[in-house]
Amino acid sequence: MAVIVQKFGGTSVADVPRIFRCARRVADARRQGHDVAVVVSAMGHTTDQLIELANAITDTPSPREMDMLMSTGEQVSIALMSMALQSLGLDAVSMTGGQLGILTDGVHTKAKIQAIDIDRIGREFKSGRIVVAAGFQGCSDDGQITTLGRGGSDATAVALAAALGVGRNGGGGACEIYTDVDGVYTADPRQVPNARKLDRITYEEMLELASAGAAVMQPRSVMFGQKFDVPIHVRHSQKPDAGTIISKETKDMEDIVVAGCALKSDLGRISLRRIPNKAGVQGMVFELIGRANIIVDDIIQTTHGDLASLSFTVDHQDLAEVKIAATKAIEQLGTGELAVEIGLAKVSVAGVGMRHHSGVAATMFKALGDAGIMIANITTSDIKISCIVPKEHGEKALRVSHDAFELDKPQGMRAMGGGARSIKTDRARSGVEL
Amino acid sequence: MAVIVQKFGGTSVADVPRIFRCARRVADARRQGHDVAVVVSAMGHTTDQLIELANAITDTPSPREMDMLMSTGEQVSIALMSMALQSLGLDAVSMTGGQLGILTDGVHTKAKIQAIDIDRIGREFKSGRIVVAAGFQGCSDDGQITTLGRGGSDATAVALAAALGVGRNGGGGACEIYTDVDGVYTADPRQVPNARKLDRITYEEMLELASAGAAVMQPRSVMFGQKFDVPIHVRHSQKPDAGTIISKETKDMEDIVVAGCALKSDLGRISLRRIPNKAGVQGMVFELIGRANIIVDDIIQTTHGDLASLSFTVDHQDLAEVKIAATKAIEQLGTGELAVEIGLAKVSVAGVGMRHHSGVAATMFKALGDAGIMIANITTSDIKISCIVPKEHGEKALRVSHDAFELDKPQGMRAMGGGARSIKTDRARSGVEL
Repeated sequence: MAVIVQKFGGTSVADVPRIFRCARRVADARRQGHDVAVVVSAMGHTTDQLIELANAITDTPSPREMDMLMSTGEQVSIALMSMALQSLGLDAVSMTGGQLGILTDGVHTKAKIQAIDIDRIGREFKSGRIVVAAGFQGCSDDGQITTLGRGGSDATAVALAAALGVGRNGGGGACEIYTDVDGVYTADPRQVPNARKLDRITYEEMLELASAGAAVMQPRSVMFGQKFDVPIHVRHSQKPDAGTIISKETKDMEDIVVAGCALKSDLGRISLRRIPNKAGVQGMVFELIGRANIIVDDIIQTTHGDLASLSFTVDHQDLAEVKIAATKAIEQLGTGELAVEIGLAKVSVAGVGMRHHSGVAATMFKALGDAGIMIANITTSDIKISCIVPKEHGEKALRVSHDAFELDKPQGMRAMGGGARSIKTDRARSGVEL
Repeated sequence: MAVIVQKFGGTSVADVPRIFRCARRVADARRQGHDVAVVVSAMGHTTDQLIELANAITDTPSPREMDMLMSTGEQVSIALMSMALQSLGLDAVSMTGGQLGILTDGVHTKAKIQAIDIDRIGREFKSGRIVVAAGFQGCSDDGQITTLGRGGSDATAVALAAALGVGRNGGGGACEIYTDVDGVYTADPRQVPNARKLDRITYEEMLELASAGAAVMQPRSVMFGQKFDVPIHVRHSQKPDAGTIISKETKDMEDIVVAGCALKSDLGRISLRRIPNKAGVQGMVFELIGRANIIVDDIIQTTHGDLASLSFTVDHQDLAEVKIAATKAIEQLGTGELAVEIGLAKVSVAGVGMRHHSGVAATMFKALGDAGIMIANITTSDIKISCIVPKEHGEKALRVSHDAFELDKPQGMRAMGGGARSIKTDRARSGVEL
């Protein structure tokens, strides 16, 4: 008898038949004798409809009132899910974020979970009840309803699993995130037809792929899982097959040089060239950009003597605003040139095995070069390599990278990705060997 | 500076433009310097849609989960109303039943308010905020969300007004129930075109008229007002005019023999004739009927020696079930005859002045007789007379009763209603003088 947390997203509970399909999954887990907590999101397009209502009132709704409004979406779902479970003959009880004891800070619309009072859930488990928990919401210590922001329901599920001891000390239980895909793939199957579903992926790889454009899981809940060592099982809500388990690195994962690759399209590149290379310049530039609430992708800088060249990418939609900020920066510096390019994409490969293998970057660059694809910026972390390429070559770049590391083959049958060589060292290394 | 409680029903907040119209009313009261609490219901047909969703899941949703579901309707309304008030430049804060400190018993879907912790509202008032309160809902002492059942938002408004001291010791403040009618009329204007709007009516008269078929206010909140002596101002949400104030009886109201009249249609009459006239018979009969959850209208009994005749009316829709229960009762008694009539209506006149005037019943009976309308059962209280008439004569009976007491004329210009005579006595009398 273990604790199973099952999370169903908005698409999975979009209508009554789907709610019942999810309820039957919950019922299966319960009938196996487990303590089950179900986390549900708002049904289908409910969230969009509520936002639309708010926007019909005002362009600038107060965050507190937005939380009051948005939290009703999950409340409807938990009531209906409980009713469905009860009609299947199971004992179930729905609980709002506040009732669950999910204590957050007071930052409305993007609150952070600070603590979970598991006594209440524990009492329900002891009475043999399935707990149907509202995802995405919590309660601040002064009794205000808060919401956790994007990906909040996943965060609720992982946090609940952590609080309930799932995976603790290598122990049992599970945190299952049900979604409308089979799991995490080596690449988005819509872009790379021969992409393979992964059985396992590490938190770090998942985080790198998520920030590189993979949309399966929000980075936040993966970080939560990583922090509390909760294995996260991502699987399809309407299929019985196992999905992908996101967990910490195990010994055998070191052999996987590249776990997967991802594409982010519609990027623009801003370059501030020939700016003074002195202390404080970068801080000033990015403070101006940060004030405009723009999220900046990879930043690179090169220097030549007294001059520096600073370059970074942003989403197309932020380009106009970032141009204003960058122009202002150059004015303040009194010197420099601004270059703006649009129509770019970023292709990334990630894998914890990079720490133990060399030649990975070279393999990727060669593959792109052989395909006649120009590379603009290159950025790397110790487990990721990203190349900025022309947008029209984005999907091709993704496919040739995927092929170069033989990601279409089962792990044991790969020739270790082109020219990648195993580095025999016990110590995880930082930086990527070229 | 007084406390004003304003309640807006579902029709009044059915869409964004209407929410703004209500918000402007609230703003007016606030700008006059009052502390304002706004109570809102769920928007338009939200409640029906939520019930429909629940019914798509199961025919027998658990009351607790129904409350979890239904309470979201008001939560959406309070968030939107707060946003609307804020966008008009006012400081407002929405509060759920639980946040308001509306403590109820644990009887889900028809909970009763037990206490209100006004400290929380008081704090918001002190900060200069308008409190936007979710009607219809509360919280039990173990933290469960409860709802108050039909007319619950009115009950919330009156209970809040009582807790906040509206009307206490003849003091200031107001409890305004905004609705889609101008106020309480001498009769339903759709049935009696020359009906007049009343400036004042007593709690008792309103209760009698409500139970006699007038749909303006649910009896429950009127009883609440009566219990705590809160004057209730019923008025139109989209018009500036004063409506009707429901309050306790004042000296000048004694002169109003009949305040208004009402019609209840689609009644059936059940008669148990020639049943044994002995102790316990009535209790047995109505226990059987009560078990079927049927609400019985006026009951009358007459006796002849050892035999009794018991007669009562019910809604048409309950007739089939009540017939089964009544048949069982006669079987248990071992003797008696069952008679069932359909197609009946009840016309009632009510007024606290009846206590001080004689000839009121005679006036009504004569008017019905002159119009050629047969009267079946007659029942009276000390401030009401009801006659059961054929359904096809229901509206005519209502109109001739209305005319007989000259309810179309302003109060001072009435000839005291046909043959009604003032009884010069200081003591309020019980029973109606024929």
